[in-house]
Amino acid sequence: MLRPSGVITLLTDFGWEGPFAASMKGVALSINPSARVVDITHSVPRHDVEAAAFILWSTYRYFPEGTVHVAVVDPGVGTARRALAVRSRRFFFVGPDNGVLMMAAEDDAPFEAREVSNPSFMLSEVSRTFHGRDVFAPAAAKLSLGFSFEEVGGVVKDPVRLSRPSYRVEDGWLVGEVVYVDSFGNLALSIPGRALASLARLGEACEVEAAGRRVEARFVEAYGSVGPGELLLVEDSFGLVELAVNRGSAAEGLRLRRGDVVKVRPKPP
Amino acid sequence: MLRPSGVITLLTDFGWEGPFAASMKGVALSINPSARVVDITHSVPRHDVEAAAFILWSTYRYFPEGTVHVAVVDPGVGTARRALAVRSRRFFFVGPDNGVLMMAAEDDAPFEAREVSNPSFMLSEVSRTFHGRDVFAPAAAKLSLGFSFEEVGGVVKDPVRLSRPSYRVEDGWLVGEVVYVDSFGNLALSIPGRALASLARLGEACEVEAAGRRVEARFVEAYGSVGPGELLLVEDSFGLVELAVNRGSAAEGLRLRRGDVVKVRPKPP
Amino acid sequence: MLRPSGVITLLTDFGWEGPFAASMKGVALSINPSARVVDITHSVPRHDVEAAAFILWSTYRYFPEGTVHVAVVDPGVGTARRALAVRSRRFFFVGPDNGVLMMAAEDDAPFEAREVSNPSFMLSEVSRTFHGRDVFAPAAAKLSLGFSFEEVGGVVKDPVRLSRPSYRVEDGWLVGEVVYVDSFGNLALSIPGRALASLARLGEACEVEAAGRRVEARFVEAYGSVGPGELLLVEDSFGLVELAVNRGSAAEGLRLRRGDVVKVRPKPP
Repeated sequence: MLRPSGVITLLTDFGWEGPFAASMKGVALSINPSARVVDITHSVPRHDVEAAAFILWSTYRYFPEGTVHVAVVDPGVGTARRALAVRSRRFFFVGPDNGVLMMAAEDDAPFEAREVSNPSFMLSEVSRTFHGRDVFAPAAAKLSLGFSFEEVGGVVKDPVRLSRPSYRVEDGWLVGEVVYVDSFGNLALSIPGRALASLARLGEACEVEAAGRRVEARFVEAYGSVGPGELLLVEDSFGLVELAVNRGSAAEGLRLRRGDVVKVRPKPP
Repeated sequence: MLRPSGVITLLTDFGWEGPFAASMKGVALSINPSARVVDITHSVPRHDVEAAAFILWSTYRYFPEGTVHVAVVDPGVGTARRALAVRSRRFFFVGPDNGVLMMAAEDDAPFEAREVSNPSFMLSEVSRTFHGRDVFAPAAAKLSLGFSFEEVGGVVKDPVRLSRPSYRVEDGWLVGEVVYVDSFGNLALSIPGRALASLARLGEACEVEAAGRRVEARFVEAYGSVGPGELLLVEDSFGLVELAVNRGSAAEGLRLRRGDVVKVRPKPP
Repeated sequence: MLRPSGVITLLTDFGWEGPFAASMKGVALSINPSARVVDITHSVPRHDVEAAAFILWSTYRYFPEGTVHVAVVDPGVGTARRALAVRSRRFFFVGPDNGVLMMAAEDDAPFEAREVSNPSFMLSEVSRTFHGRDVFAPAAAKLSLGFSFEEVGGVVKDPVRLSRPSYRVEDGWLVGEVVYVDSFGNLALSIPGRALASLARLGEACEVEAAGRRVEARFVEAYGSVGPGELLLVEDSFGLVELAVNRGSAAEGLRLRRGDVVKVRPKPP
């Protein structure tokens, strides 16, 4: 059985400036006064379920086993979309049934998903527009107290899944896409670091094709391995190939955004 | 007697980027090492006492009974304005005597206000420019430890109050104003949801008049009840009528800001 | 011996929007489940080691004795720059060896610096690009649990130091520089409040010379001591002379930035 750690994380697109994230914290603490509520972020671009799913995937595993992760990017709030609670091998996840939880939950398989339908896992009054406060925070707090996962509601066999970014090998190119742009303008690609490492040695020059341009970038160990302003490829801290500019922004320099296709190969001799 | 919960919340216009909010957290933890300090927000527009009062009002009740809420939007710091501590039915409030606390405190009446004048509720050195750190955080931490509210200082009979936004019925229109614009551009009005519900059925088309324009909006249960980009009226999570655009921004679309007058009525047949 | 308080603070340039700050919190809580992890800020301008050093200096002392302060502004991550842990009189500091820790550590002298080289103070896998998560957060969590500071690694005799902003007296002028611009546009100068107080009385008119302009500003006790929009000099909450505009922005009005030279003297009769 998975024992709760007492930690609850929050990941939303509510912003940091209003009453929304704070209300969720208040509700969680009212139900579980000894919970430790941790903000992952509230700056997910509005309604960007994919971005939230990626941030949750890249973060969830670093928290203590038994942490309850709450992710609320919820354009369908108040409609028929289901509220989910998921128990995976080491974690609980709570949020809307729109795929935001599943990239992480599948990564930590096996998992079981249930619909949050038991009113004792919600506030006594549930608004139509703010399930983060009225449904997801209370359900998370109850799970963090050790209430039975099975009592949340019925099993959901078909939770909504997002198509997972992947990569392929084509004519000697690794072909993937930008999956995340961080605040420095570094571009995480859907290409695993080990895939590039199997084709190129550290220090080797590579070719990158994206947005109709072909540029050169060295595959290196660290940003500082190339000069300031130079393009580089590095295995990032998530295990993905990252396209970056040392002390600069690859996103600006190459005018790339999430979802854009990027091709990489060792430079032909 | 109201027993402290050990939770202290912070609501300021200091921003998240500098040393100010963090210093308050440090002071609170130095005085009460087991306090749980929770950020409501530090993004209140500079010196916007009304916005802070609204956010506090919409949030305070979701925290555990006995929580100490600290709100510091304080253009008068260092002048003769008083420092207040307020004990209401279920909560403590600490902040400057400029109205920022009173919308919440009156909502949780009865309350008693006292001036923070006892030096043992402050840091030993009090600067002229940062009472958040030197007066309000220490006073909150002391209250969270269970120190007597009566020892804070003398009773204040006439705390500064803000004029509360209200609404009226006029020629069949509900006439109110925008009281809060959230980060999505949704507009909370000073009209209670039940007032509109007494005039219009769910699903009914309504007319909205604001900024010299008249537009149509359906009164619905949830954002997703209308098509993307369509205007809607919904009872929001604070119990107020909200004017919103599904997956869009009503504030941008209608060019409305806090304080602007908005009139709503069921569409005449 | 310095006993840990169980509080860990985080100060980075990672922003609030991505997985980076959250991963550090998760790692710290996984190693020390009862740690209280507090954000100082994650909004340091990218790679601005000086700004981070100033914020740490202005904040660190308000936390409980034995707090572990983690500061990660780390353009050299993955290169030969050392990872440091520092124990000063009352605090621990953890971060890269680029000066970010030293303004605070020297302020709380005596201190001892050690290189974080013991693998048991790191995650089992250390990435090349994210030592905040893989080295600094684990080291901080271990120190917060009471693991021996001496076991972190060997003594570092020559930690990198930043040149500290200072001031001088020249022809009756106090000559300093802008050391911090807060979110209100107030300008903290490298001139101690007591230095100005030894030349000018409270209420006295002063002359300020900066960016080729000479303007007048009264040396007062509080922002509210002058009219809205008026320039003032005040001893700020860090003990420094601050150049400010009541309810306005001195940074905008005078077009000054960090590092700009500012001269102040009492107005000649």
